[in-house]
Amino acid sequence: MSLITNLEWRYATKKMSGAKVPQEKVDTILHAIQLSASSFGLQPYTVLVIEDQATKEKLLAASYNQSQIVDSSHLIVFAAWKTVTPESIDSFIADTAAKRGLPLEALADYKNYIAGSIAAKTPEEIAIWTAKQTYIALGNGLAAAAEVQVDATPMEGFNPAQYDEILGLTEQNLTATLVFPLGYRHEGDWLANLPKVRRDKDLLFKFI
Amino acid sequence: MSLITNLEWRYATKKMSGAKVPQEKVDTILHAIQLSASSFGLQPYTVLVIEDQATKEKLLAASYNQSQIVDSSHLIVFAAWKTVTPESIDSFIADTAAKRGLPLEALADYKNYIAGSIAAKTPEEIAIWTAKQTYIALGNGLAAAAEVQVDATPMEGFNPAQYDEILGLTEQNLTATLVFPLGYRHEGDWLANLPKVRRDKDLLFKFI
Repeated sequence: MSLITNLEWRYATKKMSGAKVPQEKVDTILHAIQLSASSFGLQPYTVLVIEDQATKEKLLAASYNQSQIVDSSHLIVFAAWKTVTPESIDSFIADTAAKRGLPLEALADYKNYIAGSIAAKTPEEIAIWTAKQTYIALGNGLAAAAEVQVDATPMEGFNPAQYDEILGLTEQNLTATLVFPLGYRHEGDWLANLPKVRRDKDLLFKFI
Repeated sequence: MSLITNLEWRYATKKMSGAKVPQEKVDTILHAIQLSASSFGLQPYTVLVIEDQATKEKLLAASYNQSQIVDSSHLIVFAAWKTVTPESIDSFIADTAAKRGLPLEALADYKNYIAGSIAAKTPEEIAIWTAKQTYIALGNGLAAAAEVQVDATPMEGFNPAQYDEILGLTEQNLTATLVFPLGYRHEGDWLANLPKVRRDKDLLFKFI
């Protein structure tokens, strides 16, 4: 199946059945998320994979009671770094050096370039920038879920402060940016059979 | 080829050859971008597809002279809406009604819900929110380009104010958020054969 076919198939599932997604399919979706592009390749976020039903129940009210939270098989929560610490840049550089078989010194300029870019941003700009990177990862997760015929719902409609509290994210320098339940559509999902609506190409694109 | 294989194949191409990408492949990439998920399905952005070499040349200095700008086949620029006007919400609702064969009245509550959500945001929050949606579309574009074996470079490293000026975006209520050259890797691209670096799964994921 092509990406286009998969993207045509998927939709933001409003009601899930509670059926479990096999681990192999979850692993594929997580692998696609892991492979996401990000600015500098820094991947400045943690991805929570929540199977525990009691935790999902706690998050329900913080998600405007949207039933996918508890009827999902796995609830993925993207949590962006609130700050980019010097230690996290050091870790990234060390990881890059190790995976590419380079001495740390060979990456000194790159490290300084990243650090300089971070230093030029306000704390608020950093938080916005790290949050944006999670949206690329969400896109990968959506495409991967569709490829393995797993339903999913990209969600911004939740209370980040409550998520941070319930999941203990604040003390980990994280904040929830996106919620992404994985599961299977309920046969009664009203949205399942409605035509997909996307902006027409002549409005969306401008050719120069 | 699976999505995972395609994502393993792709990398942020640093030097492109100038070779042209066939229109059929460009169309596939644009189709994937068009199918992107977005908050409310609003797709609050315009996607510029620049083949004109003179325009690319003008953008080079505004892109810190990164050569992919001029050595790309097509330069894609994502430009987010700076504000969400009542007219744009009306258009979205009318389009949804038409594509789903519904009377406008059936979408009145949904329209009010979207308008209320927008009204609750500051102008700055709206601009951040529309910009974030372009990152999902970028993810789709990257996956699609890899599927058709076209190289691409996701870029935040450019001067948005200069892009807005050169492309006349400001007066269209738009601002450039992401740049995405499409083309083919130059045989001398230093990054082409280096191992991909991604955060290890045990650091990136937390299982609950």
